[in-house]
Amino acid sequence: MIAPPITRQLADFVAGSNWRDIPAEVRREGIRGLINYVGCALGGCSDEAIVLAVGVLSPSFGAPQAGVIGRGERCDMLNAAFLNAASANVLEYDDTHLPTVMHPAAPVAPGLFALAEARGAGGQELLHAFILGVEVSCRVGNAVMPHHYRRGAHITATCGIFGAAAAAGKLLGLDPVRMNWALGHAATQSAGLVESLGSMSKSIGVGNAARNGLMGALFAEAGFTAAESAIEGKYGFAVVGSDTVELGKAVSGLGKQWEILANAYKPYPCGVVLFPVLDAVLELRKRIDVPVDQIKEVVVRGHPLLRERTDRPEVGDGRSAKVSLQHGVAVALLQGAAGIAQFTDAAAADPNVLALRARVMAEDDAAMPVESAMVEVRFADRSSLSEHVKDGRGTPGRPMSDVELDAKVSECAAFGAPFVDMPALIAAIRDIETLGDAAHIIRMTVPA
Amino acid sequence: MIAPPITRQLADFVAGSNWRDIPAEVRREGIRGLINYVGCALGGCSDEAIVLAVGVLSPSFGAPQAGVIGRGERCDMLNAAFLNAASANVLEYDDTHLPTVMHPAAPVAPGLFALAEARGAGGQELLHAFILGVEVSCRVGNAVMPHHYRRGAHITATCGIFGAAAAAGKLLGLDPVRMNWALGHAATQSAGLVESLGSMSKSIGVGNAARNGLMGALFAEAGFTAAESAIEGKYGFAVVGSDTVELGKAVSGLGKQWEILANAYKPYPCGVVLFPVLDAVLELRKRIDVPVDQIKEVVVRGHPLLRERTDRPEVGDGRSAKVSLQHGVAVALLQGAAGIAQFTDAAAADPNVLALRARVMAEDDAAMPVESAMVEVRFADRSSLSEHVKDGRGTPGRPMSDVELDAKVSECAAFGAPFVDMPALIAAIRDIETLGDAAHIIRMTVPA
Repeated sequence: MIAPPITRQLADFVAGSNWRDIPAEVRREGIRGLINYVGCALGGCSDEAIVLAVGVLSPSFGAPQAGVIGRGERCDMLNAAFLNAASANVLEYDDTHLPTVMHPAAPVAPGLFALAEARGAGGQELLHAFILGVEVSCRVGNAVMPHHYRRGAHITATCGIFGAAAAAGKLLGLDPVRMNWALGHAATQSAGLVESLGSMSKSIGVGNAARNGLMGALFAEAGFTAAESAIEGKYGFAVVGSDTVELGKAVSGLGKQWEILANAYKPYPCGVVLFPVLDAVLELRKRIDVPVDQIKEVVVRGHPLLRERTDRPEVGDGRSAKVSLQHGVAVALLQGAAGIAQFTDAAAADPNVLALRARVMAEDDAAMPVESAMVEVRFADRSSLSEHVKDGRGTPGRPMSDVELDAKVSECAAFGAPFVDMPALIAAIRDIETLGDAAHIIRMTVPA
Repeated sequence: MIAPPITRQLADFVAGSNWRDIPAEVRREGIRGLINYVGCALGGCSDEAIVLAVGVLSPSFGAPQAGVIGRGERCDMLNAAFLNAASANVLEYDDTHLPTVMHPAAPVAPGLFALAEARGAGGQELLHAFILGVEVSCRVGNAVMPHHYRRGAHITATCGIFGAAAAAGKLLGLDPVRMNWALGHAATQSAGLVESLGSMSKSIGVGNAARNGLMGALFAEAGFTAAESAIEGKYGFAVVGSDTVELGKAVSGLGKQWEILANAYKPYPCGVVLFPVLDAVLELRKRIDVPVDQIKEVVVRGHPLLRERTDRPEVGDGRSAKVSLQHGVAVALLQGAAGIAQFTDAAAADPNVLALRARVMAEDDAAMPVESAMVEVRFADRSSLSEHVKDGRGTPGRPMSDVELDAKVSECAAFGAPFVDMPALIAAIRDIETLGDAAHIIRMTVPA
């Protein structure tokens, strides 16, 4: 028997998946993904980009089907999906699928909660669809990496839309043919440029991935046809998006190997390569008992990628601070934290941070893995302190614990939506499998 | 002085363009483009794909800012832009920019009329913005062709969005910095696969180009920032979308050479390569005075591209009929016409058409240009008739006359929206430069 084409295999898998087929550790990671998603959206919901987007889109708000996390607005499902995805990603505090460096939850989750509000869905159903959506996004990504991202496709948006469509299609109960169409509509709407990173425009790409994936599923539900070979076809997504296509990666081990198990949660709202550096700096700081002006210089040693990506002593705003080694080290040493407040425009412009940034330098050590870093603080009296971190928090060897994750999302809410009862919200998501009405979670995130 | 980057040059050009800089023949072609746009949208507005799209999107209809051409619905600008673009393109009866084979009006025009309704705009202002939008779409296309389309990017959608953003930005009066952002938002939303052609999904790509281009301009107006080097950047649109980038083509001769002068209007709602064939068949038919069952065979000779693209004796539905040489020849011989009604699902399934299709064959003649065709009809009595067409109607050597264009759009309206007073509508668009309120045109297209 000849295997069906790749797009159809993915459609068959999602449409045919049963809850009992989902292993316990996969369910657990799905729950953690949802906690992280809602937390990040609460953190981002009052960001300037989101406030502007709400203003521009509000005349286009349709029926009040769904809520915007952390905010008072209610709007149609499509706009809600756009805004919640943008919120969840805007702070760069997402989950990260390590093999592709994709942030799967921001595109996949919003459409599901919108559907739960508009059409009704149980918690277990939503969790199931979320896990499947993450699976599809990451597998489509695996098939087109590494060239897809290297060429300039913002994979969170370009591949996230496939998971958004698949997940929404699952919650809608699409049959395999319509699920295939939903993936086809996703393929033809796949968009997003790495060039947009560092500007607000990035949020449009991520918002569209959620919105348009959901829209694709709704169109498919209505009988709106699509190319059935949208991923593998001669003029399909894969060849358009990559010179290194390995279609087999999209389906090999489907239902046995789960991509969500390679999904990590950021401990800091900044570039992944900075995580071990910040771990080391925060450890060191506990041991430093002299004023910061006694620090002569800070030397950071790590994999060459660390320097390539983050050696930026000049930092214009909060967005660029998130990819600056100098900023991260300086602000963490000065403030003893590396959370949202440490990567704002204000933090980037703080004269004390500026002064210390100038004394931070990077050194390559090709022998060090990218999950590691060595930080040495040298003082005016020629003494020094150093700290080596083998596995940064939020990397595969040192995943965030549940306690750390809860603390992170609570920090997010305190920053962006301080009125939310986070212990209750976290408990509700952790028990989502028993929740009769998944929309309850969104209602817990909005002002009374 | 170093020239600014390409994206910024385009932004400067659009933001700085004055009406008096637009040559008379360019204005005239802009008007013809608008007549063709409105006509095609009237023809397509009751297509199954549009009916389904209206149904799916109606819960997402926001404030009643803008009308859907040929229909009763009013909705927010973004949804109106989506639906009108899809309508204008769904019948494959568009304008065609011959160097890129892009259909520029469907993405560019809808946002302009939506803005005219929601914010107010004079006819001359709208025409000016439309001409500039077509210019930007086609120039961005020129810079990434031929590889862009050959790889699988549906250029009408992927490049159309740039013109949609530029045109809307012009009507919004964006300054060069914000116009640059609008183009940046367009770049990161650019999407559409050739693979989707032949399915309804194509309409999502074209609809999104109009919707998201307008959205990009509205976001830019609000101060939502974008990558300034979105086209030419290291991870920008051009290198992501093509291996044959020639950025200079986007800007050389800007303001002196006008791409809209290479924009043609389809005389038949089918693939461009079929135009000379249908011209020849319709001429021949006037000379045939025996019953069609006396036709033994029909031989069509043309450039090899004709056979490659359209040698399809088996035709499943109206959509595939539009790219079938056999269908086009058979239906034109039988019905003496090759309009919308000849490319419907019903026409494709007509037993008489089926029987004649089987007797039509294609022959390559590499010496013939693609604008030409030779058709020979051979009869049972061994007599034959033949017709050679050098320049098919709707090709550069034989553009559609105003009279032909008026007849075409009247046929469109008769098919999709027969209640419209076409002579009055055509006259209003032809006089658009003197029209105080451009929205008047849309009001003329909807049921009373």
